[in-house]
Amino acid sequence: MSETGITAQLASFVVQSRWDNVPQAVRHESERAVLNWLGCALGGCRDTAVERLLAAVREFAGKPQATLLGRGERLDALTAACINAVASNILDFDDTHLRSVIHPTVPVAAALLALAEYRPLSGAEFLHAFILGVETECRIGNAVSPEHYEAGWHISATCGVFGAAAAAGKALKLDTQQMTWALGIAATQSSGLCEVMGSMCKSYNMGHAARSGLAAALLAASNFTSSERALEAPRGFLNVLAARRDASEVARELGSSWELLQNSYKPYPCGVVIHPVLDACIDLRAAHQIAAEQVAKIEVTIGPLALLRCGNPAPRDSLEAKLSLAHSAAVALLDGAAGVPQYSDARVNDPRVVALRDKVTVSSDTAIGKEQARVRIALTDGRQFEMFVEQARGSLQRPLSDADLDAKFRSLAAAELAPRAVEQLLGHCRSLASLPDAGFIARASVAAAPH
Amino acid sequence: MSETGITAQLASFVVQSRWDNVPQAVRHESERAVLNWLGCALGGCRDTAVERLLAAVREFAGKPQATLLGRGERLDALTAACINAVASNILDFDDTHLRSVIHPTVPVAAALLALAEYRPLSGAEFLHAFILGVETECRIGNAVSPEHYEAGWHISATCGVFGAAAAAGKALKLDTQQMTWALGIAATQSSGLCEVMGSMCKSYNMGHAARSGLAAALLAASNFTSSERALEAPRGFLNVLAARRDASEVARELGSSWELLQNSYKPYPCGVVIHPVLDACIDLRAAHQIAAEQVAKIEVTIGPLALLRCGNPAPRDSLEAKLSLAHSAAVALLDGAAGVPQYSDARVNDPRVVALRDKVTVSSDTAIGKEQARVRIALTDGRQFEMFVEQARGSLQRPLSDADLDAKFRSLAAAELAPRAVEQLLGHCRSLASLPDAGFIARASVAAAPH
Repeated sequence: MSETGITAQLASFVVQSRWDNVPQAVRHESERAVLNWLGCALGGCRDTAVERLLAAVREFAGKPQATLLGRGERLDALTAACINAVASNILDFDDTHLRSVIHPTVPVAAALLALAEYRPLSGAEFLHAFILGVETECRIGNAVSPEHYEAGWHISATCGVFGAAAAAGKALKLDTQQMTWALGIAATQSSGLCEVMGSMCKSYNMGHAARSGLAAALLAASNFTSSERALEAPRGFLNVLAARRDASEVARELGSSWELLQNSYKPYPCGVVIHPVLDACIDLRAAHQIAAEQVAKIEVTIGPLALLRCGNPAPRDSLEAKLSLAHSAAVALLDGAAGVPQYSDARVNDPRVVALRDKVTVSSDTAIGKEQARVRIALTDGRQFEMFVEQARGSLQRPLSDADLDAKFRSLAAAELAPRAVEQLLGHCRSLASLPDAGFIARASVAAAPH
Repeated sequence: MSETGITAQLASFVVQSRWDNVPQAVRHESERAVLNWLGCALGGCRDTAVERLLAAVREFAGKPQATLLGRGERLDALTAACINAVASNILDFDDTHLRSVIHPTVPVAAALLALAEYRPLSGAEFLHAFILGVETECRIGNAVSPEHYEAGWHISATCGVFGAAAAAGKALKLDTQQMTWALGIAATQSSGLCEVMGSMCKSYNMGHAARSGLAAALLAASNFTSSERALEAPRGFLNVLAARRDASEVARELGSSWELLQNSYKPYPCGVVIHPVLDACIDLRAAHQIAAEQVAKIEVTIGPLALLRCGNPAPRDSLEAKLSLAHSAAVALLDGAAGVPQYSDARVNDPRVVALRDKVTVSSDTAIGKEQARVRIALTDGRQFEMFVEQARGSLQRPLSDADLDAKFRSLAAAELAPRAVEQLLGHCRSLASLPDAGFIARASVAAAPH
């Protein structure tokens, strides 16, 4: 470890990184992440939260620099970054770096793609900056995990702002001094409380992080100064926002180990810690042909974080249901599926779902990991079935294949695009590294493109 | 205390407050605060930090809704709120609620005046909303003091975002539900690290708070949902951002006791905890005709917070010097004054100042309060002088009079306006409560107003 502080080390790595030195596996993972993210944005772009956000900020937005994904309105890049981040997070269907429980792509890709429409980047430049942004946020997240998230910080936002700043800074070709400032400006804007989960603000946290991170890079490019050791200083990010931290995680094996390879993709549009419960309910139902009216009791045992974040026994709407183990278990047992329809406001208040969810009890066990769950179902006729899920579908050990991700993209994009346009956009994303203009995918995400 | 949570109580108070019920002393103090703030904005509006910020964000700004104070450019209200907050804080000459060490006016007034140009408010409506914003931020600050600031949170920004949200929310006539959400949206955007003090980011923290608070109110007006108990919830602001907190401070004597009456105004453009040291240096120099070349040693003893925030013995520029006890003591002893010229980049690097500042030693004593200091000066001829300042000039016990504030305003506004325009603007501020359009003072702050 050199004498240089870790903020400067990280900044220097981002500035000096060359695309030639990024392994092929990492490049491929970046295309998977962007494809998955773009699908989520298309699926979420008409959500009520997006409509209300747009209604609130539209009058204050600037020149038509960047596209609202799927929708087609063009606003200034900072506002577009915010709104696209909200749209791509609102379904709770985006990706997860499970070690830190960061959803890494949303703030980074939303900031970067909006910038790419304003200052064109090649597909390779885009993916390279994206990869570095993800490294930045996930490594900072590793350094403060698990205490930071457990304390109530929405880690995807608090660390996402660094990822957006680093990615946008790379795209803007900041020098090391400027990149150090960009990380400092990101640090002092870092925010987001877990308390707002279950409301529209959960996704706004991601939008605010995307916007603030992009602003940090733009300010640094204009030589707006900040601390040069915003991470490690006594009153810096790591010390102020975490009861315990390991600063060495930030620079450990930087350039040889890639956090993006630890990324995973959701098969279900809800809190990732709920996923093993959904696996169990869907599999038990299929294996034993369980009908809802036979069920007397559903006992769920999961890890402590899952109970903390998703213990709500009586969600009132879609946003709350996505963080409710009780709703999820009930609807999955009823439908044998857990897709976007299972989390609509209507299904959340469906009397059959409500009746079944009241039969769910949830408890936690510290021996159960974030990707694990035990589900025990007791029927009225006395039969009992139990399943322990060791690794949830979509986890690193059971990853979604490229074909799975394509199918997920098709299903989400179909909400906005005709089948042929879906296939074209999918093709562009799958060959993003060789596209001359990354911003093209933003414009191609809109059905009736302007002439 | 009712069963209702404090977030809802505070929201309800802000919504239901009537101008008729605001005591005259509070109204008068609000005019003093706004006058002092506007002067600071005029003095700071051409600072390098403002120029760089404007250069960075200008391309992304929206319609010409609100004026950059002193300068005259017109940008969207959110961007103008941010830039005007930076301009009015950059000189470190704004006001102080000493109990919490919040500088209360900057984020609230900057957000509110920008909004007032977009959605006109009468002077009385403006002052009323301003007063409620200050109550909101200072009460939340009281609830987390002193642990929050000591831990490294830039309390003027972290709490300022609530003040801006409450004031803008009052101006937008939010209902109680919406105001509760506005406070929740503010809470989840609350940010700002003390680590960036000494860089341009210190003032950017205030700009980000002003912008984010205004955005919170606009989002809530659009029914963008948030937590309804963002302050008091287990993972809410008070618990996550403070090692200890007293939630009862938020609603204590709400409506009968006014935090704005605890506001004070700076006679010197630097960190408020430095002020008693400046008093001592200026008074000792005058009393004993001390010449800089006679000085062998300057011993400063102050409270722990002052040493923590202002211990820098060798500042490199104006921004660092404003938080340096050593520079302040030296330059005050040299010049017998401590105004804007004493904190210029040139003076910070003046060899005479540097030579004298190297003779300053600073230590702390927990028995010394935030508005107190002891200064001992030893001369080369063996003489020693000592002074203990019980209450700094500008503190609540030795407040700046209305005439002092007028003089301060004149001196700062002279940088942008001709004498006659200065007097006119001063007059408008002194009769703000009866102005039909508060936004007028923003336009009148510009020398060559557009036709």
